[in-house]
Parts: sequence; C-alpha cells; structure tokens
Amino acid sequence: MDSGILNENKGEELYTFIKRLYPICRSITGNGVRQTLAVVQEYIHLQIHEVPSGTKVFDWVVPKEWNIRDAYIKDSSGKKIVDFQKSNLHVVHYSVPVNQELPLQELINHLHSLPEHPDWIPYRTTYYNETWGFSLPDAVLQAMKDDTYEVSIDSSLTDGHLTYGEFFIPGATEEEVLFSCHICHPSLCNDNLSGISVMTHLAQTLQKMKLRYSYRFLFIPATIGSITWLALNKDKTVNIRHGLVAANLGDPGHVTYKKSRRGDAEIDRIAEVVLRDSGKPYTIKDFFPFGYDERQFCSPGFNLPVGSIMRTPHGEYPEYHTSADNLDFVRPESLEDSYRKIYNIISVLESNRTYKNTNPYCEPQLGKRGLYKHVGGGDAQVDQMSLLWVLNLSDGRHTLLDIAEKSGENFFHIKKAADLLTEHDLLSEVER
Amino acid sequence: MDSGILNENKGEELYTFIKRLYPICRSITGNGVRQTLAVVQEYIHLQIHEVPSGTKVFDWVVPKEWNIRDAYIKDSSGKKIVDFQKSNLHVVHYSVPVNQELPLQELINHLHSLPEHPDWIPYRTTYYNETWGFSLPDAVLQAMKDDTYEVSIDSSLTDGHLTYGEFFIPGATEEEVLFSCHICHPSLCNDNLSGISVMTHLAQTLQKMKLRYSYRFLFIPATIGSITWLALNKDKTVNIRHGLVAANLGDPGHVTYKKSRRGDAEIDRIAEVVLRDSGKPYTIKDFFPFGYDERQFCSPGFNLPVGSIMRTPHGEYPEYHTSADNLDFVRPESLEDSYRKIYNIISVLESNRTYKNTNPYCEPQLGKRGLYKHVGGGDAQVDQMSLLWVLNLSDGRHTLLDIAEKSGENFFHIKKAADLLTEHDLLSEVER
Amino acid sequence: MDSGILNENKGEELYTFIKRLYPICRSITGNGVRQTLAVVQEYIHLQIHEVPSGTKVFDWVVPKEWNIRDAYIKDSSGKKIVDFQKSNLHVVHYSVPVNQELPLQELINHLHSLPEHPDWIPYRTTYYNETWGFSLPDAVLQAMKDDTYEVSIDSSLTDGHLTYGEFFIPGATEEEVLFSCHICHPSLCNDNLSGISVMTHLAQTLQKMKLRYSYRFLFIPATIGSITWLALNKDKTVNIRHGLVAANLGDPGHVTYKKSRRGDAEIDRIAEVVLRDSGKPYTIKDFFPFGYDERQFCSPGFNLPVGSIMRTPHGEYPEYHTSADNLDFVRPESLEDSYRKIYNIISVLESNRTYKNTNPYCEPQLGKRGLYKHVGGGDAQVDQMSLLWVLNLSDGRHTLLDIAEKSGENFFHIKKAADLLTEHDLLSEVER
Repeated sequence: MDSGILNENKGEELYTFIKRLYPICRSITGNGVRQTLAVVQEYIHLQIHEVPSGTKVFDWVVPKEWNIRDAYIKDSSGKKIVDFQKSNLHVVHYSVPVNQELPLQELINHLHSLPEHPDWIPYRTTYYNETWGFSLPDAVLQAMKDDTYEVSIDSSLTDGHLTYGEFFIPGATEEEVLFSCHICHPSLCNDNLSGISVMTHLAQTLQKMKLRYSYRFLFIPATIGSITWLALNKDKTVNIRHGLVAANLGDPGHVTYKKSRRGDAEIDRIAEVVLRDSGKPYTIKDFFPFGYDERQFCSPGFNLPVGSIMRTPHGEYPEYHTSADNLDFVRPESLEDSYRKIYNIISVLESNRTYKNTNPYCEPQLGKRGLYKHVGGGDAQVDQMSLLWVLNLSDGRHTLLDIAEKSGENFFHIKKAADLLTEHDLLSEVER
Repeated sequence: MDSGILNENKGEELYTFIKRLYPICRSITGNGVRQTLAVVQEYIHLQIHEVPSGTKVFDWVVPKEWNIRDAYIKDSSGKKIVDFQKSNLHVVHYSVPVNQELPLQELINHLHSLPEHPDWIPYRTTYYNETWGFSLPDAVLQAMKDDTYEVSIDSSLTDGHLTYGEFFIPGATEEEVLFSCHICHPSLCNDNLSGISVMTHLAQTLQKMKLRYSYRFLFIPATIGSITWLALNKDKTVNIRHGLVAANLGDPGHVTYKKSRRGDAEIDRIAEVVLRDSGKPYTIKDFFPFGYDERQFCSPGFNLPVGSIMRTPHGEYPEYHTSADNLDFVRPESLEDSYRKIYNIISVLESNRTYKNTNPYCEPQLGKRGLYKHVGGGDAQVDQMSLLWVLNLSDGRHTLLDIAEKSGENFFHIKKAADLLTEHDLLSEVER
Repeated sequence: MDSGILNENKGEELYTFIKRLYPICRSITGNGVRQTLAVVQEYIHLQIHEVPSGTKVFDWVVPKEWNIRDAYIKDSSGKKIVDFQKSNLHVVHYSVPVNQELPLQELINHLHSLPEHPDWIPYRTTYYNETWGFSLPDAVLQAMKDDTYEVSIDSSLTDGHLTYGEFFIPGATEEEVLFSCHICHPSLCNDNLSGISVMTHLAQTLQKMKLRYSYRFLFIPATIGSITWLALNKDKTVNIRHGLVAANLGDPGHVTYKKSRRGDAEIDRIAEVVLRDSGKPYTIKDFFPFGYDERQFCSPGFNLPVGSIMRTPHGEYPEYHTSADNLDFVRPESLEDSYRKIYNIISVLESNRTYKNTNPYCEPQLGKRGLYKHVGGGDAQVDQMSLLWVLNLSDGRHTLLDIAEKSGENFFHIKKAADLLTEHDLLSEVER
C-alpha cells in the first residue's frame, strides 16, 4: 500500500462530486442532509442513522428537525428582493416560519450583510435561538428603500430526527482509525463539500483494500453530530487508535495539520512526516479547543488521538462562510493534493512497524547480497542511506516512523528499505 | 484578589518613602539600620531582631557593629576637601577610626574615585578587612595638591549587634512565601531603597487581606543578614514554598526576573507568565550563583524556590554603587510598575488552583447557560477562548498556570473563566 | 593533567611523521600496512595482529591479501602513459594481475578519471569484485590516441593475512577509552595519514602518564578491520566507556565532531564542551550511519559510546580521495590543533568527577580563606565565578562536566576551582 497506486485523475472526480452536492440546502438536520447522504451511498455502503429530536446526548439535547421549502422578501411593488430559490444562504438557517408585512425599520433587525464584501451573501444560523432572518448582499441592503416589505419563510421546525451517516471497514484488527467530516453546511464548497468529497472517495478506495486497521467514517452535522455519535457510541471509542477531522480541503492554500490534544500521538507525528516528505509548504499547529469536531473528540473525558487536516484554516480566508466559498473557490488540484496526503498518512499508519536487525553486530555485508551501490549522487545514495538507517536503528525499539523522523529520509524510502532487508532475512518484525 | 484593586497613586507613595530614607547612613550593622527599620515600623508591625556580634552563623561570624558620626579630609589650610556630612558615601563603610596628618602620597592609598565618571562618588566597603578609606569624585582627587592632609573618621567598630526586621502575615496554611530585601546600603536609591519601599508597601497591603499562603518579609543586611536568618531559622525554611529577593526596582529599565536554582519552580513560571501577560518588554535570566541573597537561599543545602526580581540588574547600569544612584535615578512610575508586577505574581500564587471539568465528555452546552458569545472580534473572543481552554484542560492534572502557559491566554482571564464555570457547576476544584 | 603540558612544537612533529609514511602503498591488507605499522612501532609498543584470509568475522570473511610491485600502461611506441612508480593511486586497489595488449576502446572501460579536476588522479578500489583498472588525470586520458596499449599490473591476490596494530595502556581502572584510526589508504595525507600521526603521538604521550582509564589504540583497515577486531574481541567491548574514531585531522578547516549513536554519551558532551571552550569555530553533527568505523562501533548490537573527530568531513572537500590530498593539503598547525583538542578531551575525561560541597548551607566565607577576590574585570572574575558555580552545584549530583555546561565556564577553570576548594576542605569527591 503506497501512494503509487493513485494514477487516476482524482482531482476532477473529487470536484465533480462537489458540483453535484452544491445546490442542496443542508443544515444540522433535515432532508438536505438525507439527500446528501443518499448521494454518498452511491459510492460506499453508508449506514444512515436517525436520532429522534429530544434525545439527551451528554449535556445536549437533539434539536428539532428543520426543513425549508421557500423564503423571500418582496417590496411593496411585489418584486422579490431576496429569493431563497437563488441561494440557500439567503435564509438564516433554523429560521422559524414567518409570513408578514413589515416596514424597513423593523425588517432591518432581521437582515445580515457584509459591508466589506458588498456582493457576497453571508452564511448565518440560529440553531438554539428561535428567531428568523435573512442574509443578503450589502449592495442589495443599501439599495432598500423605506417601504413595507412582505417576508415569507416557508420552513418547519418540528420534532423529527438528526440524521448522520456511518461507514465501517473492518480490518485485520479491532483497532480503529476514525475519519470525521461535517455535512451540515449548505451551498459552501470548501467548508465542507470538499471534506465530504475527499472522505467519500477515500472510503471508496479503502473498502477494496486489505487493511491492518479497521476504519470508521462519520458524515455528521458539526458539534451536535459528533456529540450525538460519541454519546451513543461511548463504548466504541476505546478502539480508536488514530483519527482525523477533515474540512476545507479544496482551497488554493497549502495543507495545515492541527495536532490532537495529546500533541505527540502517532497520527500527529505521521502527519508531520508526510507533510515534510511532500517537499511542499505546510503548517503544523498545536491543538487549541476551537475549530471543528476535534473539540468533542479531544474533550478531556475522551482525549482521543484525533488531529485535524485542512488547507487554509477556517476563518483565515475571507470567503469562509459566505457565498464566495463557491465552485470557483475550490480547485481540482487542491482536492487531489489533499486526497493524496491523507492517503499517504493512511499508508504510513498501515505500514508503521518495528523491526530487529538480525545481524546487529557490525553492518552486514550488503555487497554480497547485491544491496550495495557505490555511493554516487541522486537516488542511489538515498536508497543506500535508507538501508543503513534501517539497519542501524532496527533494535526493536524504533518504529519505521521513528527512523524516518530521525534520519530525515522519506518514510516510503525507509519502508522500501525495510521490505528489502526483510526479504534478505536481515530484518525481522517484532511486536511492539 | 486581582490587580484591579490598585487604584491609588502608588508611584508617588513609593517614591516619597525613598526620599525619607535617603539621608540615613546605613551599613550591615549599626544605628542607620535601626533608624530605617523604625520608619518601616510606621507602616507594618515589623519585629526587630538584634543578633550579638560573635554569633556563629554557619561558616560565618556576626561581625562587630559599626557606627559613624563624622569624617572628613582637611587640607593644610583647614579647608574640608571631603565631608561625610555632605554624603555618607564619602567614607569607606566599616572604616576603623582614624585621626592623623598624612602627606598626599600616603593618603592616596586610602582614596577611591571613578575616573570614568569624575563627578560621582563611588560606594566602597571593607567589612572583613580592618582598614579605612575615603571615596570622592575623581575631579576632587585630581585637584588635590602635594600637601599634608588631616584625616578624621569618627567611627566605632565594637561588639554590638546585627539588626534585622521580620514581618510575618499568617495565612490559611502554614505554607510560606518569603520576600527578602537588603537594607545595608547608605544613600543609594535603586540599590536598594527601591526594594525596601516596594516590600514595605506590599506587606502593608497584604496584611489587610485574606490570604491562602502565609507571608514572611525579611529586611536584612545583604549576605551576612540572610546567612544569619537562615542559620537561626533553619527549621522554618521547610515551609517556604515560593520566594522572591527584591532589589533595583526603581530605575527606568524594564523588569528582569532571575530564576531560582531549580529553574522550574512555580514562582519561576508565574513570574514569566505575569511578565508575558504585561505586554511590556522583560528579561528572564537563568540562575547564576552571584547577585543578592538568592545566593544563600539557593545554596545547595537549602535550594529554596526563591527567584529574584529587579529592573536593570546590578552592575548593568553605570550609576550602580555610586552617588548617581540618587533620587533622580529612580522614578515613581518604575516603582509603581514593579509594585504592580510583584502584586500580580502574588495574585497568581494565591489563585493558582487545579480543577476538574464536571462534564468531561464533549463540551457542555454553553449557550443554554448564557456563556456562549458568538465569536466575533475583540474581548468576546478572548473570554470565549478562555472558557474553552479551561474546560478542555481541566482534567485534574493542569493548574490554571499550566492552562495560561499552554493557551497563551492572560492568567487572569483564565482565572475569571474558571470562576465563571465553577459558578455554573461546570468545574470543581481538586486537591493537587 | 591539563593542556598546559604541551609546549613542544607538535605541529612539525606530526607533519614530519606524515611525510615519512606518504610514499608507502597501503591497502586493506598487504605489505604496505606492515611497513606503516613498523614505523608506528618506533613510537609505541604496538602489537601487530595477523588474521588469516578466510577467517569468518560476523557476516564478513577476511579477504585475500593483496600486494603490488608495479603497474603501467604503455602506448604502441613503448612510452609509459601511466606509471605506478610515480603514484600508487594510478592502480585501482585490489586489481587482479593483468598483462595484455588492448585497443583504446576496450581499455577505456578500465580507466578512471575526474573530468572536473583534469590534473588529479582519483583513488579507486575494488576489494570485493575481482577486476582491474587504472586511475589517471583526465588530461592524460583525453590525450590518449586510438592506439593499442600494453597494460601490466604486477600484483598478487592470494590467501594471506589482514594485518592490524593494537596498543593498550593500562590505567587505574579496567574501564577503557577506545581510539581508532584507519590505515588502509595509500598516498593520501588527510584521509588518513593525519589520523595515524595524531593517534601515534597521542599514544606516545599517554603511555608516560598516570591515567584513570585504560586506553586502547587501534590502527586498522577501514570497515573490515573494525569488523575483524570487534568479532575477535567482543568480550573486550564491555569495558569501553568512551571512544573516538579519528580521521581527516590535517586540513585547513575547523574541527567537526560527530556524535555517537547514543547522542548524549559523556564523550559527546565532553567533545562539545572542549570545542566550545576553544573559542574557535566548530561543528557538531548528530550521528548518521555512514562515514568511518563508527558505523561498526555504533551498530545496534554494540551501540558503543564512540564518536568521531575530524576537521572537514570526508566528501566535503574536493581533494578527498584524490592525489590532491597530498603533503600540501595538510598543515602542521591544523595537525597540532587537532592533537591539542583530542588531548583536551582526554584531560576532561580523566578529570570529570563529582563532588559534594562540605558546607552546603549558605556560601562559605571565601574571604577568610583568601579565596575571595573583589569582583573586577578580567580573569579574577572568571575564577571567582568558577568557585561560586562549583560550590553551588556540588550537591553530589552534578559532575564537573555538568557544571561546565550549565555555567558556560571553561571546564579547566571549573576543574581548577574544584581542586582549590578541595584543598580548603570545602569540597569532597563522591562516588558516582
């Protein structure tokens, strides 16, 4: 299992998937989530869970289900100033139904815009506060006259369900790797259709492979979704050995990895080695208790070894949570790069083993086994050095990851060296 | 207990106190020390200790008591070239009595000046070597003619006492915080009337407060004073949990903290966080076995967690140990800043506790308790982040200091967050 | 034992020794090695070991012995184009005998040159691959016409012995310091006549001294020599407490120390302190499993605390392994500097002890013992600080090396301070 198997044009595939999901109006509950998960089901055998409103999940309660059919603001001439059919960002998500006429001075308290980006529609929600509102370009807001407006939100907020998807791939052991992405955002591409797309395609690839770890993929609404899953599956968390929360994987920025609360978990070290080996710019951040669902996975009671992978972090790009996080903002090449790096992280996870040099006293004679290349420039030297590093550090106490870290050599060169030496009976695997 | 209570004009108060003590001729023993401590007694119920000359204190012996009434050098015309009444720095401290006529060529061996600062009088001592001498401006020295001079030092060096002051404030526990300043320097403001002033006023403030720790303030002559106190109070040192030696607190430079010999004592970490949180420049130095009484408190047999706080370190400003360390050199605003920073250190010491999140599985729902502010700019975000950090790290193993260090948040924001969460039963204190 | 005893003109002595060994044609076996060791025996009572070809040494086998008398290439006019008598680098070492006529197009496969340095002869070997070849300046190669050439190599490759030298100096304890240098290179000065010269002279000096450690010097062919010694002396390795591999000690570059595989061995820390104290530029490298015989000493089965000392590392200077590594390339002053630094490392090894302050409560009164100098500028302060550091850190847990590291003071100042304090009964040595 190494990164060499990815020869398809993944970037376009990942992008096309986003295009298909873009128009759907998702929220933390409701039919948009169901439609989205139905599309994912075309790729993987996703199990759909429906958790009733009112279910107690730790300190929280599963909220009412919200659905929306239409919403608009009309001026006194009957012209639609704001139309939900044109963008599902126009309505504040979780708005209660409304149908009334209002003067501008009252309506304005329900309107949200971004003066610094007058053509963009901001994304706003009101999950735990029963009110209503509209988002609109500031240019439209500024042009509104002192008039009486008809506002209509044809929504429902009623007992129903919180819906999430779960996909489990059994591996050789019960030890699990958890992947989680949030599915609650409407027409926003980077945050987080990019995450849904990359996770779906990774799961599709992994399900065909022979794996050491078991893998669990969660497609959940942010915050309440992870809290719900953790509350209903507390017993399963004991098997989680590694995990990643994935979001913002399609923007043009470089990859950022945010460490787990532990800070030195194997996944933290692997992510850093993979990004280092890529030879491209990257950022490593220490854990902080803000962001996405790592907040819940890394809460002190769980303290799971779950990091977060993204490109530009949320809030650090102006398009974040606006209509400008659209199909132009995400790039096939960024999606593919994110996919490959996460795939490489999985490859390292799967192949990080510990070995013992079977000939630990002095170096073995590589030449008589055809393993000695005269040290010249380029690749030959790299391979020679990888062999020597693996021999030198394989004392039963260093993993291949340790060796890759200590030597500065590419992990997959180290792995290849270990395989070659194992073939020649110069190395034998040990249980950690 | 936080820094908010200091609304008085402390700077002027601290400076006025220095002005009052400035004229007194102090040394390591003698009436100048007694007069100084009598002034301190007007502020706090200082206990005065008198230790007889000849008392054995570890490897040392309490020296004879030195007192001086007058000293001068007259030229052959009877004109006073050097006059103790004009500056008590003119005489080398601990000079034996002398009254004789001398030619310049002999006298010159007893004269001390600073050629690089021709108008300044250096401060010189001869505690453990019975001789005599004068200090004078180099300009005066250079103008002295080949003449016969009358020198007179009306001093006494006889069996008497070493005098020091001690003030103890009992707190809720027997665990002690030790503050120590030296009181043996004559008319020198930064070194160390500034230390005496800040310590006196801090003690005055603390005695009115309800405190967790007990506090012990020592007003002692340098070196022999701390050795004497330690020798006579060895049993008391077991209760010392934290300590600070204070000197040079009034000059215009920024604050410097010199760590205890341990290097990672709680006081060392607290001082660094308080200075970091101040947003002003500061310097942290590792321990070295030179300086003030930390040399004794941090000797290997005691190894007490005692750091040193100062502004510009001794020897790093040219005015050090000269007549230029005068009332112009120290500043009310520097004194106040030193006072506030030490006060903040005490505040952190008093409030550094360990908590356990009572809802450790996932985040609690802050919104339903009115603790959730939408993350915007400015202070709101700071508070929100402090709440999240305290919740995330309160696993019974992190102190509030640990959280302030790890999060980079201001300690008092962290403390406020902990108080708020405790009020809402989301946090409970644990014994460390 | 300190660096002060070296008042001779070591540089010239070390250089003269190299001049004498330079013409000899050494290889990993053969008479050149024997001649070289015979010269070393004039300085120290070197024991010569002869290990038969075919002896199994771990994963290796001692090779056949190679000797060479003459070699040349003649053109069809009978003119010698390449002549072994002019440089022993002209023949590829371990070439099998050959005597034949060849057209240029066939001969060229056996020729080695350096196009980037057209006047230099490269050094090439073929120890474990039975073939033959010549090295020559690229300028000569380019001038060769399409002709028939007579090639002759009058060598022998037959069962014989691997020869190495060993010199043991017994010290007060069985604990050993191992020094190793390789002796297998022909007319190459820096790599490694410089190493042989410095090791021989150091051994000569040490044998006259009273030493705490026992010292073992190995003069061995690279790789196969250390493997052979380790295979035949595995039981002796348990006494090795410290060690150095020495090579490339005469070039004009600054000193480089490469750490042992352990990375924090006492020898690693001592080398760094000695280089730091020298006040000259130096480089410290972490261990990597390439280079000289540290590869074998630091193989995982042995993991000996053996570092490597050199000036410019092999491969980092263009003259490396060419005829330009000649008598002009190495310098008396570089050889002397290398010698002194290794001598200082030995001095620190010999004198690194642990002490306890006999007066641990507060500082002792240095003045009454004549140990107190008023802190002025220059050396006085250095000495005073060394005394204070030794007193402060001598708690039975810090070695003198620890104190030198922590204080930043020169190790030998620290040592002198410890001796002085011991004389005054203020310090007593403790067993570690």
